[in-house]
Amino acid sequence: MKLSNLMIDDIIINALKEDMPFGDVSTDNLFNGDEQSEGRLIAKQEGVLAGLEVFKRVFELIDNMVVVDLYFNDGDKVKNKDVIGMIKGSTKSILKGERTALNILQRMCGIATKTNMLVEAINNNKIRLADTRKTTPNLRVLEKYAVTMGGGSNHRFSLSDAVMLKDNHIKAAGGISKAVNTVRNRIPHTMTIEVEVETLEQVKEAVEAKADIIMLDNMDKKTMKEAITIINKKALVEISGNIDLNNISERVFEGIDIISSGGITHSVPAMDISLKF
Amino acid sequence: MKLSNLMIDDIIINALKEDMPFGDVSTDNLFNGDEQSEGRLIAKQEGVLAGLEVFKRVFELIDNMVVVDLYFNDGDKVKNKDVIGMIKGSTKSILKGERTALNILQRMCGIATKTNMLVEAINNNKIRLADTRKTTPNLRVLEKYAVTMGGGSNHRFSLSDAVMLKDNHIKAAGGISKAVNTVRNRIPHTMTIEVEVETLEQVKEAVEAKADIIMLDNMDKKTMKEAITIINKKALVEISGNIDLNNISERVFEGIDIISSGGITHSVPAMDISLKF
Amino acid sequence: MKLSNLMIDDIIINALKEDMPFGDVSTDNLFNGDEQSEGRLIAKQEGVLAGLEVFKRVFELIDNMVVVDLYFNDGDKVKNKDVIGMIKGSTKSILKGERTALNILQRMCGIATKTNMLVEAINNNKIRLADTRKTTPNLRVLEKYAVTMGGGSNHRFSLSDAVMLKDNHIKAAGGISKAVNTVRNRIPHTMTIEVEVETLEQVKEAVEAKADIIMLDNMDKKTMKEAITIINKKALVEISGNIDLNNISERVFEGIDIISSGGITHSVPAMDISLKF
Amino acid sequence: MKLSNLMIDDIIINALKEDMPFGDVSTDNLFNGDEQSEGRLIAKQEGVLAGLEVFKRVFELIDNMVVVDLYFNDGDKVKNKDVIGMIKGSTKSILKGERTALNILQRMCGIATKTNMLVEAINNNKIRLADTRKTTPNLRVLEKYAVTMGGGSNHRFSLSDAVMLKDNHIKAAGGISKAVNTVRNRIPHTMTIEVEVETLEQVKEAVEAKADIIMLDNMDKKTMKEAITIINKKALVEISGNIDLNNISERVFEGIDIISSGGITHSVPAMDISLKF
Amino acid sequence: MKLSNLMIDDIIINALKEDMPFGDVSTDNLFNGDEQSEGRLIAKQEGVLAGLEVFKRVFELIDNMVVVDLYFNDGDKVKNKDVIGMIKGSTKSILKGERTALNILQRMCGIATKTNMLVEAINNNKIRLADTRKTTPNLRVLEKYAVTMGGGSNHRFSLSDAVMLKDNHIKAAGGISKAVNTVRNRIPHTMTIEVEVETLEQVKEAVEAKADIIMLDNMDKKTMKEAITIINKKALVEISGNIDLNNISERVFEGIDIISSGGITHSVPAMDISLKF
Amino acid sequence: MKLSNLMIDDIIINALKEDMPFGDVSTDNLFNGDEQSEGRLIAKQEGVLAGLEVFKRVFELIDNMVVVDLYFNDGDKVKNKDVIGMIKGSTKSILKGERTALNILQRMCGIATKTNMLVEAINNNKIRLADTRKTTPNLRVLEKYAVTMGGGSNHRFSLSDAVMLKDNHIKAAGGISKAVNTVRNRIPHTMTIEVEVETLEQVKEAVEAKADIIMLDNMDKKTMKEAITIINKKALVEISGNIDLNNISERVFEGIDIISSGGITHSVPAMDISLKF
Repeated sequence: MKLSNLMIDDIIINALKEDMPFGDVSTDNLFNGDEQSEGRLIAKQEGVLAGLEVFKRVFELIDNMVVVDLYFNDGDKVKNKDVIGMIKGSTKSILKGERTALNILQRMCGIATKTNMLVEAINNNKIRLADTRKTTPNLRVLEKYAVTMGGGSNHRFSLSDAVMLKDNHIKAAGGISKAVNTVRNRIPHTMTIEVEVETLEQVKEAVEAKADIIMLDNMDKKTMKEAITIINKKALVEISGNIDLNNISERVFEGIDIISSGGITHSVPAMDISLKF
Repeated sequence: MKLSNLMIDDIIINALKEDMPFGDVSTDNLFNGDEQSEGRLIAKQEGVLAGLEVFKRVFELIDNMVVVDLYFNDGDKVKNKDVIGMIKGSTKSILKGERTALNILQRMCGIATKTNMLVEAINNNKIRLADTRKTTPNLRVLEKYAVTMGGGSNHRFSLSDAVMLKDNHIKAAGGISKAVNTVRNRIPHTMTIEVEVETLEQVKEAVEAKADIIMLDNMDKKTMKEAITIINKKALVEISGNIDLNNISERVFEGIDIISSGGITHSVPAMDISLKF
Repeated sequence: MKLSNLMIDDIIINALKEDMPFGDVSTDNLFNGDEQSEGRLIAKQEGVLAGLEVFKRVFELIDNMVVVDLYFNDGDKVKNKDVIGMIKGSTKSILKGERTALNILQRMCGIATKTNMLVEAINNNKIRLADTRKTTPNLRVLEKYAVTMGGGSNHRFSLSDAVMLKDNHIKAAGGISKAVNTVRNRIPHTMTIEVEVETLEQVKEAVEAKADIIMLDNMDKKTMKEAITIINKKALVEISGNIDLNNISERVFEGIDIISSGGITHSVPAMDISLKF
Repeated sequence: MKLSNLMIDDIIINALKEDMPFGDVSTDNLFNGDEQSEGRLIAKQEGVLAGLEVFKRVFELIDNMVVVDLYFNDGDKVKNKDVIGMIKGSTKSILKGERTALNILQRMCGIATKTNMLVEAINNNKIRLADTRKTTPNLRVLEKYAVTMGGGSNHRFSLSDAVMLKDNHIKAAGGISKAVNTVRNRIPHTMTIEVEVETLEQVKEAVEAKADIIMLDNMDKKTMKEAITIINKKALVEISGNIDLNNISERVFEGIDIISSGGITHSVPAMDISLKF
Repeated sequence: MKLSNLMIDDIIINALKEDMPFGDVSTDNLFNGDEQSEGRLIAKQEGVLAGLEVFKRVFELIDNMVVVDLYFNDGDKVKNKDVIGMIKGSTKSILKGERTALNILQRMCGIATKTNMLVEAINNNKIRLADTRKTTPNLRVLEKYAVTMGGGSNHRFSLSDAVMLKDNHIKAAGGISKAVNTVRNRIPHTMTIEVEVETLEQVKEAVEAKADIIMLDNMDKKTMKEAITIINKKALVEISGNIDLNNISERVFEGIDIISSGGITHSVPAMDISLKF
Repeated sequence: MKLSNLMIDDIIINALKEDMPFGDVSTDNLFNGDEQSEGRLIAKQEGVLAGLEVFKRVFELIDNMVVVDLYFNDGDKVKNKDVIGMIKGSTKSILKGERTALNILQRMCGIATKTNMLVEAINNNKIRLADTRKTTPNLRVLEKYAVTMGGGSNHRFSLSDAVMLKDNHIKAAGGISKAVNTVRNRIPHTMTIEVEVETLEQVKEAVEAKADIIMLDNMDKKTMKEAITIINKKALVEISGNIDLNNISERVFEGIDIISSGGITHSVPAMDISLKF
């Protein structure tokens, strides 16, 4: 996913209004707008960048005379103490936007960084590390974008763009086969169907029903291998279930196409980045 | 801070639209709306609850026939496997709201839980653990509320409700004394002024300028103690600087009024909670 | 696609405000709100219904005491003079909502009716009649829903949920194969890729590139048949190009999976329906 | 009516967001933004133009480096194959806006073209062809503007700007005279009152009540002529009732001031226009 | 003009959010929501009521368990100390809405009261006292409604619903006659044209051009009388120009139809009303 | 408080849409956009300016080719007939924005002017004249800003930024001391608490409870003096209660810190300013 101003401007403007419903009582009362400052955006830890253009856009929306020069691109790795960019302009404008811009950037870089660590742990370019819908409400575009900058890939964007049939869907419909067929006839022909399975029996049913993607939910390694044999490339194989740096290596083997992780968006430490004048 | 529907409805509605720009292709095509389900909201780890009413409101806004019964209140501690509540109603409505409701609840509980761990580590009811403005853009009300449910307290809500003078403000104004006085004359008489200091010299200046709160930024323990002696209860004493479970105990001593932490909102693992049918 | 209040309320509320920026000078000045009326919603032509719940919702949003009883469901065929439903309540509320409710209903029924005529002309339940993105700005959910009520099916909902590679995409990327591969690696694994082709040469390239759907653009019948032979079920076959009642029968033959038509949404006479007191 | 950015920007921005909730998966993944393209906007049928500035504005809002040169003005007639304008700029930006821009333009040109055909059929510059409130929800400004570009004129814009008393109003008020007088005393002195009549008796009442405009609803030609004699220029004469190209000539005669038609906005084929690279 | 929830809800909701971006730190921290209170809405001066339903709606939108009983209707005159109504419900909800509800009500009653004083001073039911477009930004519906409750009448609602030609329009068009004719041909046939004149020469031109309303701007009494003679009932006669209680009696005489006053909306003391527990 | 475009653009854009839901029927039909005009903004009375940048911004948002040159700054005093500024640009754009721009400017200048008259009557730079929350709904930022331009100061911005405990709060909590302590423990440490008192007994309680500000509500002069003695600088002293030009001099004496007035925002005549071409 790529970002455009159409996607991010409302997020930024609302965040600035959230932080300044009646202006900034510190800077509004201390500066008249003529004072100029210059600051450096510095990485305080190693990490992967994401959101630099959003950072820049925050200041553009406050005061289009503020200049932000960036020395890196999204997706780049930085080391502790690297100078990511420079900002120059009215002291007042910079101080007003600083916290909002950093809040967004640090979160996005945190996601890119955590994603990247998992991607490196997988260390297999045939296996995708995909995100989920476990994103922060109303920030999904920023977070899904950050995942790709960390080397991960996106799962479906929303409930509107692909089918995922879980336990409850299947029970209510009276079996995998019936559920898949019912839905297949009604969805756009451009859409795919993913089925979540827990047993090998269900794997077989899903393959017979021509599921496009089969998600092995919390299976042990042996069962997964058998499932992969059953699937036999007739569907993409996705695995899921509290994947983390500690356990990911044992989940990586031949036949898996996608490992999906909620944690890369829902449990992420912000990357430590500061703006020094 | 307390939450009301006026504060949370827009967040929820936008989150639901983000997740369903064109409906839910899975449930819309599988269910006709008559199917009923019942699910249990279960803690999968120990933690402190926050956001139960927001969770409930998500379903109310989708379908006011869905019933959510809650067995705990915000602020309560739960253990792994505790049943937090029950949900009952149209299968379709429950499945549509499930992810959005959990995304919000898990994040809020994560914040309350992390806050609570720090509060317990401080273990001193004369010292407040306060949040900062390092919150997720456009979710500040949810996050500041969650902090209080974890036993923490709120710092200023935004740039509009209290003055914080940092390095750059002070430099630009020509010293602490001048900055404080300039601002004091211009802000509402209901507002207070906090000054961030790095040296004992600055501590003295801040006390003389009658700062209401003095924030000791990243000082070592010895310097902090001297600062506290200088301040001598003429201002509230706040300390700050990458406080975490590992280092908090060494920051707690006589004379400190507030410890503020960005990490309790910006770097929080979601609490593991699931909805089982 | 199914509709929910979350999807339609903003459309309705904005339409009512568009029609009454300063109220309704006729009814506001003639009625005090106590007058009661009863009206019948009558089909003035044969057609297929779509949008009855939206019609009802218009009045609910104006005055929840107005009662609308519906005798048909969306998707039903009605004959000229059929009474579709009854409305009962405050004269003032009914008159204020009447035009907006009818404007929406008549358009949606027009689409369902036109779609249905084409579906009947195709007369082959193995071939889908699909819509396009040629919908009225900001009414896409209503129109895509109406298409399904007429027996048609939906193509992708937006630029975000499936890939369609046309001439320009292919040229810029340096060929079908390169374009498909580049995109395949970057999109969610849940998404499919459709390629628009004009020559048999391109058909072959698309098949080799493993396009999921191949769209034969404005080909003559003979070429289409050869294309279908080449594709040989390795991709879905979609045809397109100013399809209308006059020419559709000659486009229907073995091997075609989808016929897509912009005209069922962009060039539709409103169905004649009136509300009689 | 004239259009301004204040009136159209929200329509356009919402339409772009409707078409790209998560970006454009085709172009976002194929182009980096540097590729340049040039396209020609070509009429594929004879017609009257309307909405050229809206078309241009779509691209301006996506990317203000895209240049649109227009060779015609709104209101101009074009022939099949006429080049209406050129577009030049980033391939990515052009492809993202193309469909939305065309959807709006084709609809507006369709309205202007259909209006123009009726105006030419009337062939009498003393008689206005007027639109109605039967416009697409939330696009009224675009459609009323397009009507004027086709040579038609606008009826009231909304329920707020002129009074129209129909059957139900009159019954509820106890007669035309009473209804007109009640309303006259309460509305702004700048507003006029139109009365819809079905019988010659009602025509007389309306004239006596000093209605400003009298609308003859579905009368036969003979009755209309008698009505015109009764009215005798004391009010404007408007006629209405499923007017179309087939029947309009028989409705045109001395004494009629306005012919109003819902069909010029609610039942319009989009004009065929394409953007060729 | 009448008010409906569709017109006022956004105003109220935004006002409540303006007053509580982060809740109400006083009541949120003192009350748990169970405390009940009862209050009386009391007039602290003589005046005319307007906005009672808006007052009530404020509390409905905060907490639909709060009950407001009203003993008067909009348009009623009250004396100092009259109890206008009672409010009963959660202390917390009442205190949160009190200021916003009163701010709106007091302003609306202030307008109704001032309007009423001028209407009584005119003391001639053939002459309307009309408002202008000099209303508070974004509150026009509330203020125009309040004017009618005070016995005044509305002038045009906005720039969209009637023509007013002033000096600048006339100059640019090359004279009154030309301006009126140009506009007449282009506006909806339902609309009227008002011309503002300063000299008797202009009065004649306006009459010849068939202006519907002629506005005598700041003329002395003698000139006004001559103007009225010239107009001779061929147009409505409106007068304007800093009309106030001091000077209005000398402006009232035979032949004037409308006196318009900006002051009844732009320079109004709030009516003194309080809510006592 | 200072204004920024982020705070005022929505107000302006909504006001322009309120005044032109379907454009400006006068200028749209008379001008083609090429006509140029020049106008002078003239004070028609003595007063204090506020809102000049907002005035300018109105035209910028309509048409960024309109040039507004200002000869004064906000806060400046002008005399009757002073030329405040010049405006130059498209006749059409100027006429469209004129009323909205003046409506805002005249109200803001009215507030600044009334505030300034009271400040001069106080004639004591140790006493602040403060505003209240009795502002026009949704225009609080404009009005609080105007107060400061008139030499007044701001009280709390909203219910979110400072505590004010009145009768009802105190009763419900069981006394001043209990109320203050309860709240103090729960609010941000940056916030202050104001207590409204009516008797000397309450004054003592408030002092003992360490209220930051004590508001003497409608006390007579003698009681106020005793209260000030009791308070003895341990809290700021605010007085309130229908303060106006007539009675303010008798309220000014040693020991008072703040006089607050609702009338400077809720009962203000617009300043007379006109735009002459």
